[in-house]
Amino acid sequence: MKVFLGLDGGGTKTDAAALDERGTLLARYIGGPSNPHSSSFGTALTEIMSAIDGLIERLSINIDEITAICLAVSGFSSIDEETLLKRSVQQHVLKQGLSIPVFIQSEGQISLMAAVGSNHGVLVISGTGSICYGYLPDGSGTRTGGWGHYLGDEGSGYQIGLRTLKTVMRSYDSVCKPTIMTDMIMEEYGFKLITDLKGYIYIPSHSKAEIAAFSKVCIQAAGAGDAAAIAILTEEAASLSDTAAALLRRSPTLQNYPVVLSGSVFRYSPIFRGNFCSSLQKTIGGLKFVDGSLGAPPSTGAAMTARKLFNDYRQE
Amino acid sequence: MKVFLGLDGGGTKTDAAALDERGTLLARYIGGPSNPHSSSFGTALTEIMSAIDGLIERLSINIDEITAICLAVSGFSSIDEETLLKRSVQQHVLKQGLSIPVFIQSEGQISLMAAVGSNHGVLVISGTGSICYGYLPDGSGTRTGGWGHYLGDEGSGYQIGLRTLKTVMRSYDSVCKPTIMTDMIMEEYGFKLITDLKGYIYIPSHSKAEIAAFSKVCIQAAGAGDAAAIAILTEEAASLSDTAAALLRRSPTLQNYPVVLSGSVFRYSPIFRGNFCSSLQKTIGGLKFVDGSLGAPPSTGAAMTARKLFNDYRQE
Repeated sequence: MKVFLGLDGGGTKTDAAALDERGTLLARYIGGPSNPHSSSFGTALTEIMSAIDGLIERLSINIDEITAICLAVSGFSSIDEETLLKRSVQQHVLKQGLSIPVFIQSEGQISLMAAVGSNHGVLVISGTGSICYGYLPDGSGTRTGGWGHYLGDEGSGYQIGLRTLKTVMRSYDSVCKPTIMTDMIMEEYGFKLITDLKGYIYIPSHSKAEIAAFSKVCIQAAGAGDAAAIAILTEEAASLSDTAAALLRRSPTLQNYPVVLSGSVFRYSPIFRGNFCSSLQKTIGGLKFVDGSLGAPPSTGAAMTARKLFNDYRQE
Repeated sequence: MKVFLGLDGGGTKTDAAALDERGTLLARYIGGPSNPHSSSFGTALTEIMSAIDGLIERLSINIDEITAICLAVSGFSSIDEETLLKRSVQQHVLKQGLSIPVFIQSEGQISLMAAVGSNHGVLVISGTGSICYGYLPDGSGTRTGGWGHYLGDEGSGYQIGLRTLKTVMRSYDSVCKPTIMTDMIMEEYGFKLITDLKGYIYIPSHSKAEIAAFSKVCIQAAGAGDAAAIAILTEEAASLSDTAAALLRRSPTLQNYPVVLSGSVFRYSPIFRGNFCSSLQKTIGGLKFVDGSLGAPPSTGAAMTARKLFNDYRQE
């Protein structure tokens, strides 16, 4: 039996998966965070090796059945960093007597593979941040957005959360109409007054995640018909649609592939998802959308990629 | 001769001024920062006392000619904090044999006094942050906005700077049309590529001020006719006008007093100022606007307030 390993490393966890040659999931292992910018390159590499070891332990196979490994770890992005990652993993498995191909892919490519079984197409992510990726069959990639909370993040949980906060304060000041988001926030955060937000939000240790968490209130309120919440989601969806449209105009070939929607905002807000799709469809036309949350996890996408790339690699 | 002292304390400096009974400026002294939240209450009080001493030293008067002191120090905002500030100054001057009234006023009240010679009316500030104050002749005050960069700051230097950054990145991604702000930023900051913004802006030590600094680029580009820059300033001016309109609707009496425009964005952007006034005039009507930058500095406003309040105080 041939076994393919895939690894999806990020700031919160390292997710590893193993597939057999027919694509059946054999095992999965979840370890600690491996984005080197959250700790250090040394710590990140240690986490990656221990996730590989943890996954192998769960597999009742001979070690030499492992045929290829695909890695996608956020934060290893320059050529030097990718080389460091690749060589470290090669040396680690070599100690166990394995000399096999190790491939590096991006977060976008493995997510796309997980969702549609192909590493080409368009991936639009809206989680805490937002980004649009495009990958062509020749392996070339392009992106729009993804500049972070100061420079971009249109249509992201962070941006929606921030607008939710501003909207309840403008409602408090009678600049905007009343919104049910005010009561929802007071209840969820245990505030006596909505102005207690000021004490909560300016705590220096609070990060992007605490702001993005308010997007849940907006999504829930929009679902209940709140006009202010619907306006935020509609406008942010249109803004992210503009980012995706720029990508599709830059590489018109991408218009022939499915647009995969990924991340928590797409998953939990049908209003956001619907507005994004209708806005992008209106601008470009003839697109096919795929709900990324319905597919396999990205770690499985990485293992699927290892399986596919190993075959391509053998044919070369 | 009766001498009145005024003190305007903030996060960057402590500005103190002395007026005689006819309102003539006798002396001015500028000391270090006295916002207690930038350092501590102890350090802030030390700076305040040394500014008072520094001002008195520059005055060739008998100490007992000092008749009243008015203080406006940002960060001393609760009743307890105001009492601490007032008592500390009273005790400090008492050591020099002076027993005189000490008044506490807000930043808004002394700025209003400096601009229009009255402590009632409307003050709209757009500097790094934004806020609208309203003060009625009975001494009562109200405000809208002023919730800081996460909860508000519409029409502020921070918000304009942030939108400038997002706009140049959207222009880089071809989501928006080219803007001259891209070249202006690259030249001013010495970037080879506009994507160098990413390395610059996410330096953890960078604060609100570094983001707000980009508003200068926007103001300059708008002056040169750049459509994207004009759009940012027009929309932000309309947003701050909505905040001011809410204040004027809440206390319609305020509509009879001048609206004083203060802060660097109003001062340096005629496009912002013009759009703010026309938008607010359209919503409310019959308003009179005053350019706050043409009047005396707020420290002089504080001394003017001491002079006025001392008279009111004696009549009581």
